[in-house]
Amino acid sequence: MALADRWLLPDGVDEALPEKAAQIEHLRRSLLNLHESWGYKLVIPPLIEYLDSLLTGAGSDLEIETFKVIDQLSGRLMGIRADFTSQVARIDAHCLKEEDIQRLSYSGSVLRTVPAGLDGTRSPIQLGAELYGHGGLESDLEILSLMLETLRVAGLEKLVLDIGHVDIVRGVIEAAGLSEADQVKLSELYKAKDLPELEVFVAQLNATDRVKSWLTALPRLCGGVEVLAKASSVLDGVSKSVSDAIDMLNRVVEVVKSRFPQIGLHFDLSDLVSYSYHTGLVFAAYQPGHGNAIARGGRYNNIGEVFGRSRPATGFSTDLKTLVSLSQPNVEQKLRVLSPVVSSAKLWDKLNKLRQEGYQVVEQLDDDVRVEKFDFQLVDVDGDWQLQAVSK
Amino acid sequence: MALADRWLLPDGVDEALPEKAAQIEHLRRSLLNLHESWGYKLVIPPLIEYLDSLLTGAGSDLEIETFKVIDQLSGRLMGIRADFTSQVARIDAHCLKEEDIQRLSYSGSVLRTVPAGLDGTRSPIQLGAELYGHGGLESDLEILSLMLETLRVAGLEKLVLDIGHVDIVRGVIEAAGLSEADQVKLSELYKAKDLPELEVFVAQLNATDRVKSWLTALPRLCGGVEVLAKASSVLDGVSKSVSDAIDMLNRVVEVVKSRFPQIGLHFDLSDLVSYSYHTGLVFAAYQPGHGNAIARGGRYNNIGEVFGRSRPATGFSTDLKTLVSLSQPNVEQKLRVLSPVVSSAKLWDKLNKLRQEGYQVVEQLDDDVRVEKFDFQLVDVDGDWQLQAVSK
Repeated sequence: MALADRWLLPDGVDEALPEKAAQIEHLRRSLLNLHESWGYKLVIPPLIEYLDSLLTGAGSDLEIETFKVIDQLSGRLMGIRADFTSQVARIDAHCLKEEDIQRLSYSGSVLRTVPAGLDGTRSPIQLGAELYGHGGLESDLEILSLMLETLRVAGLEKLVLDIGHVDIVRGVIEAAGLSEADQVKLSELYKAKDLPELEVFVAQLNATDRVKSWLTALPRLCGGVEVLAKASSVLDGVSKSVSDAIDMLNRVVEVVKSRFPQIGLHFDLSDLVSYSYHTGLVFAAYQPGHGNAIARGGRYNNIGEVFGRSRPATGFSTDLKTLVSLSQPNVEQKLRVLSPVVSSAKLWDKLNKLRQEGYQVVEQLDDDVRVEKFDFQLVDVDGDWQLQAVSK
Repeated sequence: MALADRWLLPDGVDEALPEKAAQIEHLRRSLLNLHESWGYKLVIPPLIEYLDSLLTGAGSDLEIETFKVIDQLSGRLMGIRADFTSQVARIDAHCLKEEDIQRLSYSGSVLRTVPAGLDGTRSPIQLGAELYGHGGLESDLEILSLMLETLRVAGLEKLVLDIGHVDIVRGVIEAAGLSEADQVKLSELYKAKDLPELEVFVAQLNATDRVKSWLTALPRLCGGVEVLAKASSVLDGVSKSVSDAIDMLNRVVEVVKSRFPQIGLHFDLSDLVSYSYHTGLVFAAYQPGHGNAIARGGRYNNIGEVFGRSRPATGFSTDLKTLVSLSQPNVEQKLRVLSPVVSSAKLWDKLNKLRQEGYQVVEQLDDDVRVEKFDFQLVDVDGDWQLQAVSK
């Protein structure tokens, strides 16, 4: 490797230099404080685990995204986490074993083999929250509200919230009684929003006209809140789970409008792509002008089953680096004091005192220091160390 | 993998559940605040880099400890960082390019293939600081003092500080004019403190009696501050670099005694094992009763050379998990409030207000909640939401 290349970082991998790092740290603290004030307890899962643990349940679609290494101690395959969800589920299922509702939060680096998810990075700093042990709408609303509060605290308020419910598309597919191959084909067409091709595909299915009308209607159920009324009428009679899901979406809309009136709402009832392990309400927040979701969450019941304990679960996650790049938070700077090199116990005590009082005190190790970078100089006035403002 | 095994973590890999996680987060913030008050700027290097970048300079002895993966995008070998030092040196050398003295701090997870360094873990959460651009004793004293302040803030004050200078053993070996093979053998004997075997080995060397006396004396220069006076007399005449190093240790002793009178001092002038990439003053802090060093640092000049910029450097690092396990810091708990499920804008506003005021407010999602876990309940008194103390 040539000298000139040694400082190159791999694609999708980045670092934060002082200004940005201070913003990330500032936001991290604000958001973990917010989560704590909502009753969410911080956990710190390990960066590496046996692959079997990482990829079970929620993690099975993360197989391609997960870096794998051999454990030199056991010879077994380990993975660097690409997501926190299955780790936190394992902690709820095995380590905490609380019967009560459990609220957990986390923040830390994850790694991905390929650029994926939020912002195409391979090294996001994820931050998120999970709620275990409650299956009702109330916990969906709590997690969704916490996600929007998280974004609000990060300075992001003018957002579009994409809301969906996996039971709608699943209910329609079930009612149509499609073969597995046809389901896959249908999902691809929905994903590509290829409506002409969809018409052709649906036309040749062995199904009633009514079922066919549901299948072609779904990807058109896409837009603002008016979509829900349209869905109620177009999908009338598909199944109880579908009408329940639409009712639930209406309730969610009501609450979000009341709590977060500034947020735009969007629906795409055929979207299942981003929510493969989810089981109920799903949602993602978008910042206008930014292509990828900046936060994403939803219900994924029974994820703990593979760890020996099945509980309802809902949660969300976001990426601190993305939030900081969009909001550019203003971090308050400490007042800066330049001190001579410490040569006495008296000066040493003075420095410690100033630092505890909130000043940033730097020893002047050489003569080259640019004094104008500081707010004060510490000067000896008749044997007493005093702050003297730097004239600028 | 059997269900019962899915929750097992690999050896040397651990996680922090809520109580411990809160302690780690609390300490992390206190220490980064301390470093900021000393003028150290936080940087966040990436978790993964090209192996060539990670293992250059300071990192070359980390080769065995570093997990390696193939970059699917470039086909090149990448490593998960096992240490921050070379990353921060790269940032100083390439990204910041400041002519002034640069003070940088960091905190984050690292991974090691084998249990190593502080505490035999493979997944420490490192925290440390580095100072670039100053080669004098003042910056050694600044970093050493910051390390001891870091441990003090972590609640660890009754420590033993091991201080050394790599020029002493290197100067003696140079004066003896040993072959490379003999140097390796000698290092092994010093490391093993195998004095009888050392006598035999030194006796057969082709050297003067005076040189031989230096070689056998070195591992006996081990103990309290009295070692320095003994070293001055025993190693008199080896070289100027050796006597300069001993003078420097005397200066360091003076300053540490004045600033940190409660700290014990220890010297082992033949110890080079733990400091392979260092170039000057080296030090490590030990907690009595705990086998491994809890923090370690020293000078390692010119580490940035491989990144195209050679500057003097000194720094230290510690492991947050180790510090927390030794000090068990007391984290203040928020007052806990139990609220009914939010069903009105008024209650929603009340909850947000309480949370901003520092309460932890939890919605009662189901009837099973144990009220005695809370300090207050939020109750509706004539249409006004009020805090009511929970009787215990």
